[in-house]
Amino acid sequence: MAYIVKQKVHGKDYYYLRKSVREGTKVISKNLGYLGKDKKQAEIKAKEIIKQMKNEIPKQNEKVASSRKLIKQNISVEELANFCKRKGFVYQSGEIYGGLAGFWDFGPLGVELKNNLKQSWWDFHVKQREDIVGIDGSIITHPQVWKASGHVDSFSDVFVLCKKCKKPNKIDKNELGKVKCPCGGEYDESTAKDFKLMFETNVGTTGTAYLRPETAQLIFSNFKSVYENSRMKLPFGIAQIGKAFRNEIAPRDFLFRCREFEQMEIEYFIKKDQKCVYKIPNVEILVYSSEDQEKNKEAVKMKIKLALEKGIIKKDWHAYWLANEFLWFKQLGANPNNFRIRQHEKDELAHYSSDCWDLEFKFPFGWKELQGIADRSDYDLSQHEKFSKKDLKVFDEETKEKFLPFVICEPSLGVERAFLVFLFDAFYKDSEKENFVLSLDSLLAPIKVAIFPIVKRKDLEKIARNIFDNLKQKWNVVYDQSGSIGRRYARNDEIGTLFCITVDEESLKKQEVTIRNRDTSKQIKIKISELENVLEKLINKKIEFEKAGKVLN
Amino acid sequence: MAYIVKQKVHGKDYYYLRKSVREGTKVISKNLGYLGKDKKQAEIKAKEIIKQMKNEIPKQNEKVASSRKLIKQNISVEELANFCKRKGFVYQSGEIYGGLAGFWDFGPLGVELKNNLKQSWWDFHVKQREDIVGIDGSIITHPQVWKASGHVDSFSDVFVLCKKCKKPNKIDKNELGKVKCPCGGEYDESTAKDFKLMFETNVGTTGTAYLRPETAQLIFSNFKSVYENSRMKLPFGIAQIGKAFRNEIAPRDFLFRCREFEQMEIEYFIKKDQKCVYKIPNVEILVYSSEDQEKNKEAVKMKIKLALEKGIIKKDWHAYWLANEFLWFKQLGANPNNFRIRQHEKDELAHYSSDCWDLEFKFPFGWKELQGIADRSDYDLSQHEKFSKKDLKVFDEETKEKFLPFVICEPSLGVERAFLVFLFDAFYKDSEKENFVLSLDSLLAPIKVAIFPIVKRKDLEKIARNIFDNLKQKWNVVYDQSGSIGRRYARNDEIGTLFCITVDEESLKKQEVTIRNRDTSKQIKIKISELENVLEKLINKKIEFEKAGKVLN
Repeated sequence: MAYIVKQKVHGKDYYYLRKSVREGTKVISKNLGYLGKDKKQAEIKAKEIIKQMKNEIPKQNEKVASSRKLIKQNISVEELANFCKRKGFVYQSGEIYGGLAGFWDFGPLGVELKNNLKQSWWDFHVKQREDIVGIDGSIITHPQVWKASGHVDSFSDVFVLCKKCKKPNKIDKNELGKVKCPCGGEYDESTAKDFKLMFETNVGTTGTAYLRPETAQLIFSNFKSVYENSRMKLPFGIAQIGKAFRNEIAPRDFLFRCREFEQMEIEYFIKKDQKCVYKIPNVEILVYSSEDQEKNKEAVKMKIKLALEKGIIKKDWHAYWLANEFLWFKQLGANPNNFRIRQHEKDELAHYSSDCWDLEFKFPFGWKELQGIADRSDYDLSQHEKFSKKDLKVFDEETKEKFLPFVICEPSLGVERAFLVFLFDAFYKDSEKENFVLSLDSLLAPIKVAIFPIVKRKDLEKIARNIFDNLKQKWNVVYDQSGSIGRRYARNDEIGTLFCITVDEESLKKQEVTIRNRDTSKQIKIKISELENVLEKLINKKIEFEKAGKVLN
Repeated sequence: MAYIVKQKVHGKDYYYLRKSVREGTKVISKNLGYLGKDKKQAEIKAKEIIKQMKNEIPKQNEKVASSRKLIKQNISVEELANFCKRKGFVYQSGEIYGGLAGFWDFGPLGVELKNNLKQSWWDFHVKQREDIVGIDGSIITHPQVWKASGHVDSFSDVFVLCKKCKKPNKIDKNELGKVKCPCGGEYDESTAKDFKLMFETNVGTTGTAYLRPETAQLIFSNFKSVYENSRMKLPFGIAQIGKAFRNEIAPRDFLFRCREFEQMEIEYFIKKDQKCVYKIPNVEILVYSSEDQEKNKEAVKMKIKLALEKGIIKKDWHAYWLANEFLWFKQLGANPNNFRIRQHEKDELAHYSSDCWDLEFKFPFGWKELQGIADRSDYDLSQHEKFSKKDLKVFDEETKEKFLPFVICEPSLGVERAFLVFLFDAFYKDSEKENFVLSLDSLLAPIKVAIFPIVKRKDLEKIARNIFDNLKQKWNVVYDQSGSIGRRYARNDEIGTLFCITVDEESLKKQEVTIRNRDTSKQIKIKISELENVLEKLINKKIEFEKAGKVLN
C-alpha cells in the first residue's frame, strides 16, 4: 500500500508518496511522486496518483520477469518480414506473380492482430469518450474535395533516377543536386520531375476521380452534417479508420512506407483559443524540442505536463493529445523507452500549421514518425467553404456568433506502423530455448487460448473439445493435439497465444485443468466450471495470473 | 415445456412434438415437429429439436408484441435514404460538391451499425468456427491476378444511352434491341459499347493496376500460403471482409448498387466430391427452383434439408451453406418471411459453375440477390497455376495424392446490402405515437444504452454521470439530459437505442434505476450495482427482460 511521507529540508515541509516493495529478501521503499508542500493538497494529489496507478498496466519488464527468463530480441525489419510471412501474419500482395511493391496482404494471424489493434484504438478514442464520434468515408472521392484541399495542385514529390543503380528515388525539392542515392550513386538531374502522389482513376464514362491520399478530408467534407446530426458541442472530434493510398516513388521498410495503408485519425475541433478541458495524462517521455535539435542536443526525458509548463510545448491541447496518444501505445504493452516526441523545425512545418509535434518510435531503421500532432487552424473548413460555396459555420448558442471551428490537432496514426511497433516490441526469447516468444498484450494477441489434451486419448479429447467448443463462442481459440506438449507450447509461444490449457488425468478426476502463462511459463490449476470467468478477467487484466488459481511449482 | 404425443392413424403410430402455449385467456397446443414412427427415434429427435429451439432467438413478432403495440412500417428506399441522412447513418460522398454517384459515407450511427454487422459476421463465420480462417488483402492488386481470373478480358457490361432521357444505362449483351429504358424511351443502338467495370489506375511510374472488383481473387492468390501457414485440413474456408469496386454504368437504389462497396466473403475448399461434414441447420424458407421459375410457379416454403432430400438442391454443401447464411440473418433479427432461395436458370450460370443458388431478400424495389452460393470447381486455382506457373496443389497425407482443391461454394455478401436488410426490417411505429421505433437486434444497435437524470438536478446528475462513465468503458452509450423524458425516449427509439436508464429519487434513496425496453416500453427496476451485469446478459440475449428485475406496471 502507498503512504504519504513528510520530509523536512531547511525547515520546510515536503510531502512524498511512497510504497514498500519486496525485492528478493529485502523490503525497500520506492518514491511514487512528489506531492508539494501543503498537507491538504498532498492528500488530494496522493489520491490522484493512486487512482492513476490502478489504471496503469504492469510495466514491460515486470511482465516478463518471473519463473522463466525472457530476453528481449532486437530484430531487423527483414527478419520481421520473414517471420510475418512464415507464420501467416503478412504476405506481399500478388506474391505468386512476383509481388506488387508497396502492397501487402494480411494472413490469418495478421488480420486478427490488425483487427484487435483497430478495435482497441476505436474503443480508446471513440467508444470510451463522449467527445468523439466516428465516420467511415468512401475511398474514391469527389475530385473537388482534393482541389479544395490543395492535393490536386501540390501533393507531389520530386522523382529522380540514380545514375549508378538506375533505381527511382524520391527527394525533397530543395535537395536536388545536394543529396546522393542510398547506394552511393549520384542522381541524374535530367530525370528529375514532379511526381503526383495521388492515384487517379475514372468514374462513370468521363470523370476523373482520386483514391483518397488521407482520411482527413472526408471528415472535413462531412463536418457540417456530422455536427448537426450528432448533437455534439465544441470541443469535439470526428474519428475515422480507413484505407488511404499514395503512389510512393520508393516504398520501403516492409509495412512502414506502403502505397496502400490504413489510417486511424481524429480531427479535433475547438472554438478558436478555447482552452483544453481535459487533464493531461501523467506520462513521461523523451522530449526533443526544435531548439535542442538546432543545437544538436539530446532529447530530454520528462513529464509531458512539465514540457507544457516550461513552454517547450506551446499549446495545452497538443500536450494533452501527445500524452494521450503515447498512453494508448503504453497501455497496450509497447515499451515506453522506444518513444519520443519531436517538435518540427520551422522549415518542416506545413503551410497551414503554426506548430507541430511528432510522436516517434525507435525502429531498427531509426527514429520515425508514428503520428503528427499539428494545428490546422480553420484552413481546411474555409477551403471547403470557398470551393463548395456552402456555409460550414457553426452557431454558438452563448455568444450568438457564427464561426468556423479550428482544428487544434489531428492525431493520425497508420495502422501498419502501429502493427510494426507492437510486433517489434513483442519479440523475446526464452533464455534456455531457441524459439521466439511473441509477448503481445492480451487485447492484441491474435489467439487468446490453446487447448490441449495432454495425450491422444478419447476421454481426455472429449473434455478438451467441450472446453474448446465453449470458449470459441467468445474468443479466438485453437485446439491442438499434435506433437509433444513442449512442441505445442513452443508453437503457441511463437504466435503470441496468451494461455495454454492442458487437459490431463486430473481433469477427469477433479474437473480441473492447468493454465500456463505465456510470459512466465507459470501454471495454475482451476476448475473447468470457472474457466470462462477466469479467462475473462485475465484477458481484460482484471486479475493477476497467480491470484487466479492454485499455483503449481 | 414440450412433450411427445403419439397419434394412431389407420392403425399406425406417428409421433409428434407438442407444446402448450397461452394465447390471451386460452391455452392452445402447438405442433413443434414430426418425430417419425419409431418411439426411440422419436425421443432422440425430440431432444434435438428442443436443443435447437433453445439456441433460437425469439421471433420478430414475439419481440414486439407486448405492453406497447408496434406496427411494422414498410418504407421506400428513398424514405430510408432520407432517414439515414437525417439521423447520421449515411451521407452521399462529396455531398457539399453535389455528390459522387455510387459512393457513400457512413456517419456516426452508420459506422457503428456497419462495424457491429461486420463483427457479427466475423464472429459467426470465423471466430466461432474451427474450419475457417481470415485474411485481409490489398485493394490495388497485381494486374496478373485479374488477367488470370478473366476479369481483364471479360468483366464488362453493355453501355447504352436512352434516346428520350439521354441517361446511360446498362443492359445484357443479348438484350440489345429488345429492352427499353425504365423511362420508357428507346435505346440508341449506335451508342452501345462494351464498358469495362474494373477501375484502373497507375502504380509507380508505369504499371497499370486494378482496384479489385471482388475480394475472392485475393483468397485464391494467397491460397497456398494460407494453407501452409494455418495448418488447416480440407474441408476448410478462407474468409475476408473488405472493399471492392465496380464502375457501374448506372448505380441505383441507395446502397444497393454502389460503385464502392464492401464484401464479406468465404471461399470454401473441399477435396473433389467430398461430402458435407456438417448438419444442415433446421430452417424453413421459400424455395424457388429453376423448374418452378420456368413453369411460372410460385416459390414453395420448406425446410432446406427437405429441398436437399427431394433433389431440388443438388449438393449437400450448397444446402448447408444456404441454411447457414439464412440463419445468420435470422438470428440477427431479420424477418425470415422476407427471404427466399432461388436457383439460377441455366442461362444465368457463370461458365465455371454447374449449379448456383441465390439467397434473396424482398426489398421495396423487388426480390434481389443478397449472396450467391455457387460451385466454382478448381477453376480459379487452376487459372492462377497457369498464369503464375506456381504449384498451388495440396498434398493428401492419406492417399499420397497431390491435387487442386475444389471451391464448393463462396458465400459472398455485400455489407451495404446486409445493412439495408436489417434497416428495412427494423422500421416500426408505436400505434399511439408518430415517431419511428428502429427495432434493431441488440448486437447490431449502434447505441446500447441511454442514461437520463429524470430532471436537471445536481444530485441526480452525479449518479447518472457515474453510471455513464462506468458503462461507456464497455459499450457505446449516451448521456442525455435535454428535453422531457418522453422526448428523450422518442429520440432514442428512432435510432434504435436498446435501453433507456432513468435516474430518479429512488436512485438516491435505494440505489435503484429504471430500465426501459425499446420494443415493449416495459420497465424494470434494478440495483445500480447490478447494472453492468444485467445489461451484459440482456445485450447478449442470455436473459429475458422481464426476468432481469422488478417489473413496473
